[in-house]
Amino acid sequence: MTSTRSPLAPETFPALPDIAGVTRRVARAQYKNWDRCDLTYVELAPGTTVAGVFTRNVCCSSEVELGREQVKGGVGRALIVNAGNSNAFTGYRGREAVEQIMAQVADHLGCAQSEVFVSSTGVIGVPLPKDKARDGVAAALTAQPCSWEAAAETICTTDTFAKGSAASAIVGDRTVQVAGIVKGSGMIAPDMATMLGYIFTDAAVAPALLQEMLSEATGGSFNSITVDSDTSTSDTVLLFATGRAGNVPLTTRDDPGADALYAAIRAVSLDLAQQVVRDGEGASKFIEIQVSGAVSDHSAKRVALAIANSPLVKTAIAGEDANWGRVVMAVGKAGEPADRDKLAIRFGDHWVAKDGLPVDGYDEAPVAAHLKGLEIRVGADLGLGEGHATVWTCDLTHGYISINADYRS
Amino acid sequence: MTSTRSPLAPETFPALPDIAGVTRRVARAQYKNWDRCDLTYVELAPGTTVAGVFTRNVCCSSEVELGREQVKGGVGRALIVNAGNSNAFTGYRGREAVEQIMAQVADHLGCAQSEVFVSSTGVIGVPLPKDKARDGVAAALTAQPCSWEAAAETICTTDTFAKGSAASAIVGDRTVQVAGIVKGSGMIAPDMATMLGYIFTDAAVAPALLQEMLSEATGGSFNSITVDSDTSTSDTVLLFATGRAGNVPLTTRDDPGADALYAAIRAVSLDLAQQVVRDGEGASKFIEIQVSGAVSDHSAKRVALAIANSPLVKTAIAGEDANWGRVVMAVGKAGEPADRDKLAIRFGDHWVAKDGLPVDGYDEAPVAAHLKGLEIRVGADLGLGEGHATVWTCDLTHGYISINADYRS
Repeated sequence: MTSTRSPLAPETFPALPDIAGVTRRVARAQYKNWDRCDLTYVELAPGTTVAGVFTRNVCCSSEVELGREQVKGGVGRALIVNAGNSNAFTGYRGREAVEQIMAQVADHLGCAQSEVFVSSTGVIGVPLPKDKARDGVAAALTAQPCSWEAAAETICTTDTFAKGSAASAIVGDRTVQVAGIVKGSGMIAPDMATMLGYIFTDAAVAPALLQEMLSEATGGSFNSITVDSDTSTSDTVLLFATGRAGNVPLTTRDDPGADALYAAIRAVSLDLAQQVVRDGEGASKFIEIQVSGAVSDHSAKRVALAIANSPLVKTAIAGEDANWGRVVMAVGKAGEPADRDKLAIRFGDHWVAKDGLPVDGYDEAPVAAHLKGLEIRVGADLGLGEGHATVWTCDLTHGYISINADYRS
Repeated sequence: MTSTRSPLAPETFPALPDIAGVTRRVARAQYKNWDRCDLTYVELAPGTTVAGVFTRNVCCSSEVELGREQVKGGVGRALIVNAGNSNAFTGYRGREAVEQIMAQVADHLGCAQSEVFVSSTGVIGVPLPKDKARDGVAAALTAQPCSWEAAAETICTTDTFAKGSAASAIVGDRTVQVAGIVKGSGMIAPDMATMLGYIFTDAAVAPALLQEMLSEATGGSFNSITVDSDTSTSDTVLLFATGRAGNVPLTTRDDPGADALYAAIRAVSLDLAQQVVRDGEGASKFIEIQVSGAVSDHSAKRVALAIANSPLVKTAIAGEDANWGRVVMAVGKAGEPADRDKLAIRFGDHWVAKDGLPVDGYDEAPVAAHLKGLEIRVGADLGLGEGHATVWTCDLTHGYISINADYRS
C-alpha cells in the first residue's frame, strides 16, 4: 500500500465476522524488493462451492484463463493471491508458474489442482518467479492464521487503504455471514489497475445458484464502477460458499432465504466496489451518476458509463464547476437513443436543465455548494422510457497524472 | 486564441493560395467580452457546390441539424462562423438566431436561405444573442476581404495557433487548388472541444461526388484523430467547390483528374486533422498509432482508437515510459478479435513484445530514446489478418487537467 490515504477512504477497516470454513494466512514471497507480506493463502473447508467473474479483456493472464475453466467445476479448496507481479503477457512461462502453485497447494491439502484458485497483480510482462512463489507458498501453508485486515492488506499493491465489507442474512433457521475483501484500483509504473475481489459465505449454496447470484450482483456493483475506462488483463471476483452454517443447501432462487442471501452478497459487492472507486487514482470526489428515462436499463447504463468515463465531465467535477454542457455532450455521444429536447440534467437535487434548455431562473449557488462536497451526484433524465441505471466513478485530477505519468522508467 | 503556443505547432501559418470564387471577411460581433474578431464570413461564387460531415452526437446544435439538411441541396453561397458561443442546447431560441443569420445573409446575396451555412463554437446553453449576431453579420458583409490567416484566427476559440493547409491537383488541362482552415481542440471553461473545418477548392465538382470525396477523406483524417475521446455537439467539416478553375465538371470517380483532386482533398484533410491533435489540450507529444494484422480495417481502427483513447497509454507516453503492458491492455479491451499469443508491440521501429512475450534480449535504451522525442509512434500487430489502420492522438498531461479543472466557475 502507498502511504497517503485517499481523502474518500472510510475511517477504519470494518469489523468482519469469522466465516466458518475460511482460514486466512499470509507470507512473504518477496516478489518485489519490499518489506511486507505479498502472498495470501485462504484455505476453504471441504465441500466449498465457488463462482467467479473475470475480465473480458482478451489479453488476459493465465490466472484468468485457468480460473474461468476452474469455476466450471464448482468446487474450491484454496485461494492464492500474489501481489507485485501480475504474471500477465508472460506466455507459457507464466502459465507454468501458476500450475506449480496449484500443484503445491493441492499436494498439501490432498485436493485436485483445479480446486486451487490463483490470482496475481502487479508488474506485467515478467513471468512470476517460480522459486519465490515456491518458497512463499511453503511459508504461507504453515503460517499462523491471520485477520481479515491482514489478508486485505496483503492483496493490495498501490491501494491507499485496505478494503473489506460484511453482511448477514437469515436462511431457513440459520444466520449466515458474508464477508469480502477487494484490492484496486491504485496503480503505478509499470503496474496496472487490476481489481481483485474475494467474497466468502458460510451458507451452503449449489455452484450454479452461486454463479447466478455473483453474476447478477456484479452487474450492479463491480461492473458499474469506472475509474479511467481502462480494463485490466487480470480483473477477477470470486465467491466461495463453505456450507458450514448448516442451512439446507440452496439450489434455486425460490428456496427460502435465497433472496436474503443474495441481498447480502449484493450489499457486500456494492460496498467493495464503491471502496475501489474511493481509492481511485488521484480521486478527490466520489461521484454517483444516475440515469433515468432511458429506453431500457441497458441503454441507461451505457449512457451513465459515457458520462462517468468522460474526461471533460470528470475534470469539471474536479474543478467544482457546474458544467452541465459536458454532461449533455456525454449523453449525446453514448450512441444510445436520446432526444436533446427532452433531456434534463441535475447536480445533487438541483435541476440545471430541462427539456433541452437551461431551467428558468437557474440559481447556481446551491449547485456550487453541492459540488464543493466530497460526494457528488449527477442525474440525467432522458425522458424517453423507464430504463434507469446508477454507476459510480471518481474525478480526474492532477493526482491521476502524477501517479501515471510523473516518473521515468 | 490563447497565448502559449503548443510545443507541437508548426513554426508559421502556411502560405495558402487564393481560391477563385472564395472571399473571406471578418468582423467583431463581441459574443464575448474580448478584443478580437469573432465572426467570419466567407462568400462563395454562384454555382458553388457543397458537401458536409457532422458530429454524430445526438445532442447536436441547431447549426448542425440545419447544416445536415442544407448539404442535401448541394449548393452553398455563404458561410458564417461564430466564435465564443456554441449556441448548443439552447432550444428554439438558438434555432431562431441561426435562422436570422441565414435570412440576413441570403437577403444580402439574393440567394436562398438554405445556401447559407452557419457554425458556432464556444459556451453552450446560452442562446446566440440575436442583436450581436445581426450587427456582427452586417459588419462582416461589408468588410474588406481578408487573408486566410485572419479567417483561420477568427474561427479559433482557445486554440493556441491558427491552422491552415493547401494542396493542388491537375484536373484535365487545369490546375485546381484546395485550401482549408480548421479550429480545435482547445477548450476552456465552460466551452467544449468543438472542431470546425472548412475546405475550399476552385474545381468544378458535382455535389454527390464532392460528398463522396469528403466522407471518404474524413474517415482517414478527421475521424481518425482523438484528443480525449469526447465528441462535441457541434463538430462540422464543410467542403465547398466554386468551379471557377474552369475544368470540365467532375461527376464520377472515373472522370480524369478525380483521383488527383481526391488526393489533394485527402492531404489537406489529414494535415488539418493532425494540426488539431498538435493543439490538443496540454499536449506535449504527437502520437501516431499504427495497428496491423487485424481481421479487417474496421477492426484495426477500433483497436487503434482503444489505444489512442486509453488514459493509461497516454499518461505513460507523457511520462516517456515504455509501458507496453498498457498497450496490451488497451488492445485486449477494444472488444475486437485479438490473440494474446500472436500480439506484437513496438515503439518507433523497436519491437518490445512479440508472440505474446517480451522480445528476447529486449534493449530499452533505443525505445527510451524514441520516447524522449516530440513525435511518438506506437505499433501493434495482431497477427490475425490484413486489416490495418492509423490514428493520431496526443499525450495526457497535467496541462489537460489544468485547462479543464483548474478553475472555479
